[in-house]
Amino acid sequence: MESLLLVLDLAGILVFAISGALLAVRRNLDIVGLLALAALTGLGGGWIRDILIGAVPPASLADWRYLLVPVIAALATFWFHPAVARRERTVDVMDAFGLGLFCVAGSLKALQFDVGPLSAILLGIVTAAGGGVLRDVVVQRVPTVFGPGELYAIPAAAGATLAVVGHELEFPATPVAIVAATVAVTWRLLAILRGWHAPVPRA
Amino acid sequence: MESLLLVLDLAGILVFAISGALLAVRRNLDIVGLLALAALTGLGGGWIRDILIGAVPPASLADWRYLLVPVIAALATFWFHPAVARRERTVDVMDAFGLGLFCVAGSLKALQFDVGPLSAILLGIVTAAGGGVLRDVVVQRVPTVFGPGELYAIPAAAGATLAVVGHELEFPATPVAIVAATVAVTWRLLAILRGWHAPVPRA
Amino acid sequence: MESLLLVLDLAGILVFAISGALLAVRRNLDIVGLLALAALTGLGGGWIRDILIGAVPPASLADWRYLLVPVIAALATFWFHPAVARRERTVDVMDAFGLGLFCVAGSLKALQFDVGPLSAILLGIVTAAGGGVLRDVVVQRVPTVFGPGELYAIPAAAGATLAVVGHELEFPATPVAIVAATVAVTWRLLAILRGWHAPVPRA
Repeated sequence: MESLLLVLDLAGILVFAISGALLAVRRNLDIVGLLALAALTGLGGGWIRDILIGAVPPASLADWRYLLVPVIAALATFWFHPAVARRERTVDVMDAFGLGLFCVAGSLKALQFDVGPLSAILLGIVTAAGGGVLRDVVVQRVPTVFGPGELYAIPAAAGATLAVVGHELEFPATPVAIVAATVAVTWRLLAILRGWHAPVPRA
Repeated sequence: MESLLLVLDLAGILVFAISGALLAVRRNLDIVGLLALAALTGLGGGWIRDILIGAVPPASLADWRYLLVPVIAALATFWFHPAVARRERTVDVMDAFGLGLFCVAGSLKALQFDVGPLSAILLGIVTAAGGGVLRDVVVQRVPTVFGPGELYAIPAAAGATLAVVGHELEFPATPVAIVAATVAVTWRLLAILRGWHAPVPRA
Repeated sequence: MESLLLVLDLAGILVFAISGALLAVRRNLDIVGLLALAALTGLGGGWIRDILIGAVPPASLADWRYLLVPVIAALATFWFHPAVARRERTVDVMDAFGLGLFCVAGSLKALQFDVGPLSAILLGIVTAAGGGVLRDVVVQRVPTVFGPGELYAIPAAAGATLAVVGHELEFPATPVAIVAATVAVTWRLLAILRGWHAPVPRA
């Protein structure tokens, strides 16, 4: 079970890191830029959460396997970026699984520290979306998660909310986590497929 | 007394959060962007201070009322942004009160941790201006507080300095805080009214 | 010895801070912007490292001399920026010494906290290059260290790696630090002199 979770976690970081490295290629950055954006995108959300709750050094700095994954993502994108870019929709779909995993895992980790349920939900969203925000800010792009693209933070909020509510009601942990992650992933995939957007203020 | 301070604190966060949500509207972001910019602007300065002094999780993550305020600001701006935008000068004036409050409260909180008086002043300025810097960086605007707009950080520095000096001289806390905040607010309001700017290097 | 290290540390911060203040002048910021960019560039890398490893408040907030240096850099640049700008290549050369010093000192500090060797190397690079990244992000410039300029992070990575490997092999500390810093400085200076760049993905 624990090694399954580790593999899922590393897979989520890998997909996020590839999206960061791909953006670095498009902005004509060098290998340093690819490595930096891969690491920021893959690990940044967890870092923000861990810094805010005081869980430092973050797990990804205490375990070298977490650092190796963005390096692999950056090198693979460096060599094979035309093939990766052609499969960007595939990256988006895999990214949805990272989203589902990280919003649930992030909010459950936050609950172990001295924050309330509302903060735990917020920190779940930050875990899932924070790396992408850092990625975008660094290359001077308004974070895509802030609009007007397809739903991203709202499915993450749903997943985090289900995880936190299930935890507060003392439901069994594993089924709650699976249901919460599945809701987030499904909602995100449907949003991509159907072109669902979050509401925008009227002009 | 304590509940007066809480109300003042929440009111300051509300005004800052409205300025963040208003900028999000102007950049055509969706409701997620409004919520994120409201939270970053309202709570970000305190988060940076708390992370730097090790006061984590920040108070605003341990008390759900602090998280509710940016949500209210974002929803109100979402629905009523034309009316809010017409009153932007009113928002600026209320923002001056947030500035005065946060530079004093921020420096006094920093003094309780292991930093010297100069750092406490810096952290007071960061508390007052840091949320606005995060807001601007996220939407790709050079932080307005860095120039060339009307004086903002300098009144905050004055308020923080008075608060720290008063504390070091062991003057009674409440009058010192009121004088320090009043100086910051008045200076900021006069700067808006008279168009005072900080010095710029000659070309 | 200890006061030699302090002087070197402050000198490194000074050079970094000057590069931040100079960029602020070029972007037409006011004295607040100069002070903020000087502090972010000079101290920001160390702050990110200290926040990630939990060494808070950072040393530079507990010792007023560290805060005075960016103030001096900002004021000197404010008054004498035409002369400073004419000597930008000199600033670049001095910056190389800051780079060598900070990558080694940063990785050795990280090793004292609960992170592995790979993380210590990463944190050494962050100490050396993080302030420049913050400086660039704030004024909406893609961080120069991410490409396509002359080698910067790679010499820092070499210095940090040598320092960490030497430490793990329990070699004597001072010679290891001197060799590691010398390699980083020399490599960076040669990169400037010869126009060496990091590899870029083929188009």
